[in-house]
Amino acid sequence: MFTEAKILEVKENIFDANQVNADKIREQLRADKKLMINVMSSPGSGKTTTLCRTINMLKDEYRIGVLECDIDASVDAETILATGAKSVQLHTGGMCHMDAQMTFQGMEALGMEDVDVCFIENVGNLVCPAEFDTGADINMTILSVPEGDDKPAKYPLVYEVSELVLVNKCDALCVFDFNKDLCVERIHELNPDAKVIFVSSKTGEGFDEWIEWLRAKIEERMGA
Amino acid sequence: MFTEAKILEVKENIFDANQVNADKIREQLRADKKLMINVMSSPGSGKTTTLCRTINMLKDEYRIGVLECDIDASVDAETILATGAKSVQLHTGGMCHMDAQMTFQGMEALGMEDVDVCFIENVGNLVCPAEFDTGADINMTILSVPEGDDKPAKYPLVYEVSELVLVNKCDALCVFDFNKDLCVERIHELNPDAKVIFVSSKTGEGFDEWIEWLRAKIEERMGA
Repeated sequence: MFTEAKILEVKENIFDANQVNADKIREQLRADKKLMINVMSSPGSGKTTTLCRTINMLKDEYRIGVLECDIDASVDAETILATGAKSVQLHTGGMCHMDAQMTFQGMEALGMEDVDVCFIENVGNLVCPAEFDTGADINMTILSVPEGDDKPAKYPLVYEVSELVLVNKCDALCVFDFNKDLCVERIHELNPDAKVIFVSSKTGEGFDEWIEWLRAKIEERMGA
Repeated sequence: MFTEAKILEVKENIFDANQVNADKIREQLRADKKLMINVMSSPGSGKTTTLCRTINMLKDEYRIGVLECDIDASVDAETILATGAKSVQLHTGGMCHMDAQMTFQGMEALGMEDVDVCFIENVGNLVCPAEFDTGADINMTILSVPEGDDKPAKYPLVYEVSELVLVNKCDALCVFDFNKDLCVERIHELNPDAKVIFVSSKTGEGFDEWIEWLRAKIEERMGA
């Protein structure tokens, strides 16, 4: 007989189970000398366009795979396939985020044996994806200029867990009131170590710096 | 003793309970001749700016209240208060959406006795808010031009449940590849009855049409 009410922290249990799966994925990635990067952003911040340009700049050096996560659509995986990279489309079935179990299923479907670097293009959402460890080695967030420089203050967690922020659509700075210094300041208040790079996935501005950062991470992993 | 495994559809139960609460709110709103509008969008699509301009155009005619829903920040309620409208800031505590119970708490905190029209500014997120009935009479979505004309295809549910879509930041059409006709077509594929209005909350373009639409809805309710 229970002498006091039993309390079940369902949400914590979900996070704990996910963490175990995520740690297992990272362990395997390290053993196989492969790097996985989780890309988060609002809808329409330019995740797919950024990945396409990135793949085109690196595909002669590394074998790249992409897990494309969407509620329902399939157009992004097709866009990625056109670059020549491997890609699978994951339908989350209405789920608002990726978790480690979904990443594992995606890796199985993609086939990791001929992939050096794997990107997860998470569901476009600044809230839920930040709460679930996908198993990736690196979390990064894309913030686009039209969304405004106040987004870090509104959606802090995604910036806290990201070691890199790409500020995208810088070619549109001329038509928006966007304070670059204030934006960087707000990101660093949440995460002093976050690297912030201003880019335009449309014009290629800033991509040399981003690619250099990324190449160092890949080399570190593959040489490890 | 159980002779077969009992299956508990937890998610369905959550939705059912929420629906009961949402219907109760709508019943009360009808009885009190007040109108409630749930505003959804991606982060940074211009919900707050749109509401400020809307309030300024209607505040001499109607008493307006706003429930500002954010994960953690409080700046939007302050922005709304500066217009002279009533507003309370709801912190969802990490939750990615509003539900009817939260709306009810917000209405209690706001005090609805001197409010004719109440807006819910939902959490910036195109996924989860669409799944939860807030109890509002009208759902609307703001899609901003920089997000791209493909958003309806990527996040269908929010467009399916919205009777109005404001396509915002039209002043920036010159710097983005955004096909207005294709956007409308994609919205109407999901929801043939949705009204689509192109606006700029920065310049005021298109606001006459939006305000006329809104005024008709308010008058219908208040006269009912």
